[in-house]
Parts: sequence; C-alpha cells; structure tokens
Amino acid sequence: MKKALPQEWQDFNLGRWSYNSVNVRDFIKKNYTQYDGDESFLAEPTEATKALWKQVMELTAEERANGGVLDMDTKIVSTITSHGAGYLNKDLEKIVGIQTDKPFKRSLQPFGGIRMAQAACSQNGYEVDPEVVDIFTKYRKTHNQGVFDAYTPEMRLARKSAIITGLPDAYGRGRIIGDYRRVALYGVDWLIEDKKHQIDTSLVRMTSKNIRLREELAEQVRALEELKELGRIYGFDISKPAANAKEAVQWLYFGYLAAVKEQNGAAMSLGRTSTFLDIYIQRDLNRGIITEQEAQELIDHFIMKLRIVKFARTPEYNELFSGDPTWITESIGGVDVDGHHLVTKTSFRYLHTLDNLGTAPEPNMTVLWSTKLPRKFKEYCAKMSIKSSSIQYENDDLMRVTHGDDYAIACCVSSMRVGKEMQFFGARANLAKCLLYAINGGIDERMKVQVGPKYRPVEGDYLDYDDVMDKYDAMMEWLAGLYVNTLNIIHYMHDKYSYERIQMALHDRDVKRYFATGIAGLSVVADSLSAIKYAKVKCIRDEDGIVTDYQVEGDFPKYGNNDDRVDSIAVYIVRTFMEKIRKHHTYRDGVPTMSILTITSNVVYGKKTGNTPDGRKMGIPLAPGANPMHGRDTHGAVASLASVSKLPFRHAQDGISNTFSIIPDALGKNMEVFVGDIDLDKLREESND
Amino acid sequence: MKKALPQEWQDFNLGRWSYNSVNVRDFIKKNYTQYDGDESFLAEPTEATKALWKQVMELTAEERANGGVLDMDTKIVSTITSHGAGYLNKDLEKIVGIQTDKPFKRSLQPFGGIRMAQAACSQNGYEVDPEVVDIFTKYRKTHNQGVFDAYTPEMRLARKSAIITGLPDAYGRGRIIGDYRRVALYGVDWLIEDKKHQIDTSLVRMTSKNIRLREELAEQVRALEELKELGRIYGFDISKPAANAKEAVQWLYFGYLAAVKEQNGAAMSLGRTSTFLDIYIQRDLNRGIITEQEAQELIDHFIMKLRIVKFARTPEYNELFSGDPTWITESIGGVDVDGHHLVTKTSFRYLHTLDNLGTAPEPNMTVLWSTKLPRKFKEYCAKMSIKSSSIQYENDDLMRVTHGDDYAIACCVSSMRVGKEMQFFGARANLAKCLLYAINGGIDERMKVQVGPKYRPVEGDYLDYDDVMDKYDAMMEWLAGLYVNTLNIIHYMHDKYSYERIQMALHDRDVKRYFATGIAGLSVVADSLSAIKYAKVKCIRDEDGIVTDYQVEGDFPKYGNNDDRVDSIAVYIVRTFMEKIRKHHTYRDGVPTMSILTITSNVVYGKKTGNTPDGRKMGIPLAPGANPMHGRDTHGAVASLASVSKLPFRHAQDGISNTFSIIPDALGKNMEVFVGDIDLDKLREESND
Repeated sequence: MKKALPQEWQDFNLGRWSYNSVNVRDFIKKNYTQYDGDESFLAEPTEATKALWKQVMELTAEERANGGVLDMDTKIVSTITSHGAGYLNKDLEKIVGIQTDKPFKRSLQPFGGIRMAQAACSQNGYEVDPEVVDIFTKYRKTHNQGVFDAYTPEMRLARKSAIITGLPDAYGRGRIIGDYRRVALYGVDWLIEDKKHQIDTSLVRMTSKNIRLREELAEQVRALEELKELGRIYGFDISKPAANAKEAVQWLYFGYLAAVKEQNGAAMSLGRTSTFLDIYIQRDLNRGIITEQEAQELIDHFIMKLRIVKFARTPEYNELFSGDPTWITESIGGVDVDGHHLVTKTSFRYLHTLDNLGTAPEPNMTVLWSTKLPRKFKEYCAKMSIKSSSIQYENDDLMRVTHGDDYAIACCVSSMRVGKEMQFFGARANLAKCLLYAINGGIDERMKVQVGPKYRPVEGDYLDYDDVMDKYDAMMEWLAGLYVNTLNIIHYMHDKYSYERIQMALHDRDVKRYFATGIAGLSVVADSLSAIKYAKVKCIRDEDGIVTDYQVEGDFPKYGNNDDRVDSIAVYIVRTFMEKIRKHHTYRDGVPTMSILTITSNVVYGKKTGNTPDGRKMGIPLAPGANPMHGRDTHGAVASLASVSKLPFRHAQDGISNTFSIIPDALGKNMEVFVGDIDLDKLREESND
Repeated sequence: MKKALPQEWQDFNLGRWSYNSVNVRDFIKKNYTQYDGDESFLAEPTEATKALWKQVMELTAEERANGGVLDMDTKIVSTITSHGAGYLNKDLEKIVGIQTDKPFKRSLQPFGGIRMAQAACSQNGYEVDPEVVDIFTKYRKTHNQGVFDAYTPEMRLARKSAIITGLPDAYGRGRIIGDYRRVALYGVDWLIEDKKHQIDTSLVRMTSKNIRLREELAEQVRALEELKELGRIYGFDISKPAANAKEAVQWLYFGYLAAVKEQNGAAMSLGRTSTFLDIYIQRDLNRGIITEQEAQELIDHFIMKLRIVKFARTPEYNELFSGDPTWITESIGGVDVDGHHLVTKTSFRYLHTLDNLGTAPEPNMTVLWSTKLPRKFKEYCAKMSIKSSSIQYENDDLMRVTHGDDYAIACCVSSMRVGKEMQFFGARANLAKCLLYAINGGIDERMKVQVGPKYRPVEGDYLDYDDVMDKYDAMMEWLAGLYVNTLNIIHYMHDKYSYERIQMALHDRDVKRYFATGIAGLSVVADSLSAIKYAKVKCIRDEDGIVTDYQVEGDFPKYGNNDDRVDSIAVYIVRTFMEKIRKHHTYRDGVPTMSILTITSNVVYGKKTGNTPDGRKMGIPLAPGANPMHGRDTHGAVASLASVSKLPFRHAQDGISNTFSIIPDALGKNMEVFVGDIDLDKLREESND
C-alpha cells in the first residue's frame, strides 16, 4: 500500500505507522510531547461550554422528572446511518453527533433481543412499533433467541438458580474497544483499503472458521462505508485523515458514535485517547492556530458528548448493574515499555473536565497508575480525586508486563491492547453458592431443586474440612465446565446475530480473544472454609435434610487481615477454579481469563445465595470483587490490602477489584500517602507467581 | 419414549418402527403388500378429478397467455404458515393445500436472495413491496449476500468465465428430501417429541459444530410446530398419526407443502412414497371403507397438487435449467436388500395418473429399475413410457449396493437414503474449459483474461499428448481446489441464511451429508485428448498468442463407440478429477461425490466454451451428461451404451446420466427389448471397479 503521504500528516514524525500498516502506538511514540508540569496551564470553560452544559443539566433534570427516560425511539432501528443529524445547539457545539435525532432520546436496538427492547420500552411507557417486532420475530433472529435455542436445560436451571449469573445472553456483551484513534489518524478510506488487503491475504482454505472471518471482514468494510456516511450526515468528509485537532477529536468521536449506535453493550469503553489527541492539539498550538481555551473546549465538548450516551435498558439490567452505566472507560497516563511516562497536557485536560463540567461517573476516567508517573500529574490526580471522587486507578506496572504500553481498560478492569485484543465478556460464577451445592449434593438451597450433579451431600452434624474440600473440588469441576460451555453458546450467537462490525473494523484482522470468566463470593468461600477448618461449623437441616443454615462455634481467621491461614485458602480457590476453567474448549480459541470483580452486582448475587458456613445470612450481599466481607478486616487498611494483593494475577488476569473507601482527610490535604511510591514492582513479582 | 400405541396403528404389524425411534423402512417392510399382477384393476378418473384437472388446464392456458406467470405474491413472505387456506375447488378436492392463497400464484421467497426475488418479480411485471426489500436489505441478510461476502476474486472470476457454473449461490440448493412419510405415520407431536429427545441426547461439549446443531434442532422443532399450524389452517389436526388412506396422503402432502412454502430449491423431490401409502390404501380396502376409484382419486388429487407447485424464478435460472423445473422426483418400485421387489398396486396407481390426468414432466416419476421387478410391472412401465414419454428409469441394482432399499432420487440422479442422508448440491465444473485453460496457461479463451493460475501455456504448432496431459493434470488440480472451496462457502451460507428447517426436521439428527460435485464436457475432453493422441491437432493462435482454434489432421477414436482407446481416457478423467476433489476439506465433513449429469444445462455450458481440440466449435452445446457428442457414436446404440457403462460409479456416485432417444416403434409394440433382462449385475461389478 504505497502511496503519497496525506498532507494531513505534515509536521508529524514518520515511521512504521506511516510506511506500513495501521500502527497507532508507533505514531504516538514518535510524536507525543511528555508533560511534567502542573495544571496551571489549564483553561476555564468557554461560554459555549457553559451554555451547552446548562442545557445538558436541564435535560437531565427533565429526564429525572420524567421517571428516568426522556424519550425513546420505537420505530427506527438504530444503525450507524439510521438517523439524520441531531444537536444540542448546532451553533455552539464544537464536537457534534448524537445517537438519535434528539439528545436524550434513547435508541431502539433489537439485534440483541427483541423482547429486551420491548421490555425496555414498555417499562418506560413506550411501545415498540409492531412492524419492528414482527420483523425481529419472523425474519430477523436475535442474539437472545439464538442463545436460548442452544441452551441445555441444565444451563437454564443454573441461570435461574443464579449459580451462574449476569450472563450476557439478554444484553450486549460489550467489552470490545474499537481503536477509534485510527479514524482520525488514517481516515476511513485508508482503513477500508487496509481491510480489503486483509481480506485478500486471508487463508484460502475455506473452513467454516475462515468463511466466518471472511464474512466478518466484509461486514467490517460495510460498517466503515457506513461510518463515512455518518460523517457526511453531519457535514464532514471523514474518508481522509483528520487535518487538525478539532477534526481529530471529531473523527475519533464519529468512530465511537457509530459503535454506540450499533451496540448496546454492557461496557462501551473508549480506549486510550488523550495522549493521541494531544499530538494534534500540540501541533495546532505549535502552528498557532488554536489557543489553550479552544483546545480545552474541544475536550470539554467531546467529554460532554460521552456523558450523554444513553441506552434503553430493562429493569433487570439496571438491577444487575445498579443503574444503567455505559462504562465509557478512558485510560489515561501510564508508562511505555521503555520507562517513559505517557502523560501529556491532554491527560490533564481530560481530568480538568471534572472541573469545567463538574463531576460525573461517565466517562469513566481511569488513570493507569505507575510509580514512574510524573509527580505533578500524580498530585493533580490526587487533588481531582479528592474533589470529584470520579477517578479510577489501575496498576499500570502490573498490566504493562502482559499488555505492553498501548492497552486500555474495558469496563472497570478488563485490560486489552487497543485494536489488537478483544474480550468475550463472561459475567460470573457464584463460588459461594457452589460451596453450598457441594454441601447439599447439587441441590439449590433456595429453590430446593437439583441443579448441580447428584453427588453425595455431606453427612453428620459438623462439617469436616477435608470432606468439604473434596466435595467442593468436584462441584467446582462441574461448574467450570457448565460455565464455559454456556459462554461458548453466548459468544457463538453474539457473533452470529449481533456482531460488533464497526468495533471490529477498528481492530487488526488477527486479534487475540480473551475468553473472560469471573467469580463472585470469594471472601465468603474463604471465610467459610476457614470457619470449617479453624472453628466448628454445625449444619442445620430443613425437613428434607437440606442444609439451610450453619452455626459457627468458636472463632476463625478471616480473609482481609493479612493472615496466611485464610488468605492461602482464597489463593487456592482462585487458582483451582481458573485451572478447571482452562480445561475446557473455548469458542474461537479464546484465551481464558478470570476476574474477581463484582463492584455492584455482588448485592444481587447475595440476594440469591443462602446462608453460608461463615455465618453470613441469606440475602446479605457478598463482598464486592476481592474485598473482605464488610467489617471482618479488623487489622486495618494495609492488612486488608495485603490480603487482596496475595491473589495471583496470572490466574485472575481479567482483573481483581478491591473497593476501598477512605475518608479523604485521612490522607492529608494533598493526598501525600496516596501518591507515595509504593513498591509495586515487588508486588507484581509476587502476584505473577 | 414408551407410551400407548396410537389407535391409528391398528391392524399394522408392529416392530422396531413402533417400539423405538422413527423407522419408516421397517414399517414398510413389515406391512406392504407386494403386487405381481397387471394394471387391469386400475380405475378411471372420477368426475371430480376431471373437473379439477380441467380447471388446472384452464389456469395453465391462462398462465401461458399471460406470459408464463399468472400471479405473484409481492408482499407476503412465504413461510410455512404465511397464508390462509387456498383451494382449486374446496368441494371437489380430496387432498388440499397450495403454496399461497390462490392456485398458480407464485410465492415470495427472499431468504435465498432479495435481488433474485426482485428480478423474478420484475421480469414478470411485478414489484416486490419496498418494505420487504428494506427488511431483507437492512435487517435480514440472505444466502446470496453471505456468499458474495466471502467469495474470493478468483471465485468470482471462475464463476463469470463459467469454468465453474450453475452454482447454487443465487438460488436454493434443494436436493434435500424430507421424509414426508413420517408425518403420516407418526403424526407431528411424536416427531417433535423425538426431536426433543435428540436435543437432550446431543453432545454436551459446546463446540461451534455442536452449537450449530443444537440451534438447528431447535429450529426444526419450531418448523414442526408450524407444520401443525399449517394443518390447522386447512382444518386438520396433524399432531396425531394419519388414521386412514386419505389422511395419510394429506398428512404426507402437508409435510411436502411446508417444504415448498419455505424453500425454492433447485430440486424439491418427494422421496419414495407410493409403497408407503399403499399400506394405508390396502388397509382401507381390507376394511371395506374405500373403493379402488376412491383410492385412485386420492392419488390423482395428490399428484395434481404436485403438478401445480410453482416457484418465482429469474430468467438466468430458467436459462440454466431450460425452464423452471421443480424436480418433484418420486422414486417408484425397486427391490429390497433381501431380494423382494417393492412394487405395490399404488406403484401402478402413481403411473396411472399419466393416463387419468394426461402426461406431464412433474412429478418426475422415476422407476427404480431392477432385473427383479415383476414382469407385469415392467410391461406396464414400458407401455406407459411409450405412451407418455414421462417416466425416468434408474438402476436400482447399482444403487441398492450403496444405499440399501429405502433411498430415493433427488432431482434426476442423486440418490440418498430417505431421512438419513442429504446432499449439498454442487453444480458443475466445466472440464472442457479446463482443458483449454491447460493449453492457454489459465487464460480464458473467450474473455481473454487470466482466470486460472499462470502456468506455462503449450508451445509450438502441434499439441503433444504427454505435454497436454501434464498441463491438464495441474489445471484440474487447481480447479478441484477452487471448486470445493467455493462450494464450502455456499453451503456454509445456505445453512446460515436459508436453512431447510422443515426438510431437516424430517430427517434423523445425525445425517450423512454428501458433498456433491459435478463435471460437464466429459465427451469433449475425451475426444479432444484422443484427437491429440491419435490424430494431429494444430493450434491456431490469435494476435495475442492465445490458442483459440484447432485444426484436426486425420481421424481419431471417438467416445461412444465402445473403443477402449478413447473410453479409457474418459474413465481416467473421471477418476482423476474425483481424486483431486477428495483431497480437499469439505464443509460439515460432507462425503464428496461427483455427477456426470448435464441434462439441459450442457447447452449453456457449450455457449460459454470456446473451440475445442476435438473439432467442436465455440458455442456448440456440450453433450449432455456422460453422452457421446452428438453424431459421433457411429457404431450403434449398444456400443454407445457400452462406452458410458465403463465410467466408474464409485468415482461418480452422484450419478451418471445418458440421454438416450429412441423411436418407440423400434422397440416393438410392447417394448420387449426394453424389459428384457439385461445382465445388470455384471455391469455393476465392472462399474464398481
């Protein structure tokens, strides 16, 4: 693909990114301007920004007054090109584009499941047009229907009992980050040409796998053509590379907008865009064609657009996710594999939107934290965290080892190389419930029906550690197999009926696929097994002989106190379950990973889990993620963190979350403790054991 | 699946068919009544039959006057339950059910391809409803679009140049025979229960293959539910087995009707139904609740329904198939694997419709011919052949070896066990054109562009046999690989976008799939190579050095004269190409087969094939199937047949056709020659070499 360099690339340092194939990382490395200074350069919001944000706030108030939804599409099926241009205020917006024709109007996305689309509408007093229902019932099968066609009765039952829960079979799986930067850097025509080259150089032996790939690539090209059309709808020719900062932000956003117009995924993350965009802003500043205020305005308007991305969702979805988060995660900062930090002025500009527009949960600003980040940036992060409580931090030093220096976070913890890796999202298996199944021989403690295999239940009045561990091992073996097979069906059908065309169009052809799984209830399991081992746990049976409650006699070590007696049980469970997961065939040779990550859904899981041998009562929320159970970490924050840090990252590569609330004042005025250089390298080595 | 025997089975001999799973063959074996007598028992058409047939003839005249099509659906997409009941004359019809709401109104079937559906309509002055076009463009992808998404440029080119031709990528592949008898014997509820049992006992490891199967089985159950609904639409409860002859014919026909409402396949064959239905008729006769005339009326009305099955097709389709045949092939007669013939009175009754309704090409009555058929039946066949020219004969003694005694013919020669085997139809590779590619180094002699690989072309003025054979071998190697890969795409996409739900619902779960391929131009190739070997063939080149014509100097042996010098070349070509086909991966592990079978399309293939070294001129039709080239078989009919009979069946298992015209008078008044016992056993042994 040799051709004249586009004039839009003038003043850029060339390299592999410009000679060969798509390589955004190389472009960034060769062109970004590190910034080690402080935030004093940042600009206030413009009048336009203030006016637009006021409008957003008014619409938000209106939406709330209206019961949570302001307007819904009931007839136009959302596709990349389904709607004409829509604006907040065309005269004031520097960055344009919304999901439908009106801001705050939720789009109709039935490809995942027509019943879900109907439920989302009816819950809010709307009705999907009967013709659309007809089409998606009689002619166009959906992801949801495909999945339920293939499910086994056992899968349905495990889903109903919630030993496997939150499965993306009734909602979009999300977690796929398109490399939206490519749209700005290369323009869409270049990307189409690249895709066609990928098609031409695909395997020629027509196995079903290759045929599927070829069809997907054809769909990707189609999606890119539609992306250009989306640009035209708003008056832009995005077939060519972006020529300046404004276009770069706009082109990149069109890529993202196309994605959210097509997919209502459980996490529609943005990627790692701030340092990329900084290159364009810096070039314009150097050229003297933009001011700092104008630069900030672009970012403010862009972030504002991300904040008003909305989906039509069902009450069940909102219960599972405690609201309807969009998880537009943007990964900021980090360090490259040669040890240079990747902080730019635009890293500051992104965080500064929390001042200019006020705090907000979306986009989910995530700082890739490293000991090597510049001190002024760390201090600014700390300051903004204290001020906004709206910044997420992730351990770059840990993830860089596996993912290099151009990865980003999808949702809350799932890391992947942008445009090169994607994830099949896998929700969670409830290991606490699995322990109860081990005790009761596969009978669900709440539904009182056989869900798991009919293994022998425990006998006698007191639980025996070795006996329970033996039974638990067998029950986890069953659960891991069932879980992976269930996910295989889901991802097969998602690809078949709700393929992420535009997101995958912004990936390389031969992506690495992570097959994500997750566990819930880790601390409950650890504490329960600890209680059985170190105290005495008496079984209380119902009239049918099912153990429905436990009486703990004596004390026992509890997870979250840096006590190896119980922490080692937690580590063992993580490693063992992951090893069982790895035994099974995964769809598209996905690489199995696991997360310990229930930031909100732990509440729902707790509701569906009976009394546990650690003394926790039926319905009490499980601890979120890898957290100790609330109130049991009695040896202070550091001991609690130490317990969590023992969990092996190599067996929980999709991420370990620890929800950690702290009173800001306790950290000092400038959060000195927070930005201190903790020895993460040492921690990393241990975690990779 | 133990349960009380249905009362509808009273008086039947029970067996595996009634105790265990679906087994129509066992039912037939245990219950049919051989008939060795003559045709004197047959009844004349009833007044109702005559009136209905008059109506059909009037509609046919009207259709012809209207340019070939009387009416078309442009809005209602044809599905099993898409239309209300439709009749010729409700009061007179003993067997009811038509494809749409009105007889002779062609249904709208866009799942194979919306453009084809539009072309079929517009050609006849109709326009598909824009909403339907919209649905099948924006929301519901079709088979045709899927295929073209995955095709390589080489495949498109080979298709355009017609070295591979007639591919089912723009029309339904057909060739799948549902076991429609099952509907009558078991009733739909039993079949649904059986399918659910198949689902429950499917493989539990969720690979893509198993997931696909599970989804297909779910679709099959859905189709069976719709089949019941189709019965209800016409006022019948077909959930239960048929209780008498009338119901048996009706139930069976509903199964077939559902298939043609869903699929516009290139051959929608019926199976092997006459001896099955005879059991019901005989039981009713024995019970004294039906007369011969009533029995014949049922068959007449059934056959009449089959005769008015029509599809909306494009001019290209009609050109390829010389009209728009439905290929409703019914296989009659044959012998069981223990040597008992399977002729019943209903075998006669089927053929008798050629008298009662007059001759017609559809349904395609095919007698499975054996030396062991009863003489009176043979004589009746001969008589009806002479009278109607509407009976096809196939060699049961040959096919029984491979397929047992419950196979049927799909289309014209494709044999498969009913309900246990199916075929992926594969159209044809033009071996004559392939020879020209070998000579010209892959350059197409008509389009003058490189289509095949850039191998070295022949040099010099005269063709050298060894040199040409060497080059031909390499070019066939290329063609076989391209051909199989092209078919892999077609069948993958057909399954994905236009799966034959109801036909496969009337199959066992674990069917054997034949991966059919075919060749055209065999005799041209054999004669050309013979000319090169035994005469002298001079190349005539155009200005670009492409060999575009040949001058044959001297005489050479020609295929069709029982001359081993050339017949052996034909045999070699068949075996060699088939062996090359077998080298390649086939979709769903289909067992590759080959046919030598161009009964009508040989004309089209000839148009697209340049001058050949045998002296045939550009545009002259290739010989049909395995026929010698017209006029070259100068040693009489027996020598001609002897050449054809040398072709190895094991390498052409999908069938070898020989179009053989003969003046009836030449055979004597009763066609004694025809029914004489030819030593087919000997022929079979030789053919299986």
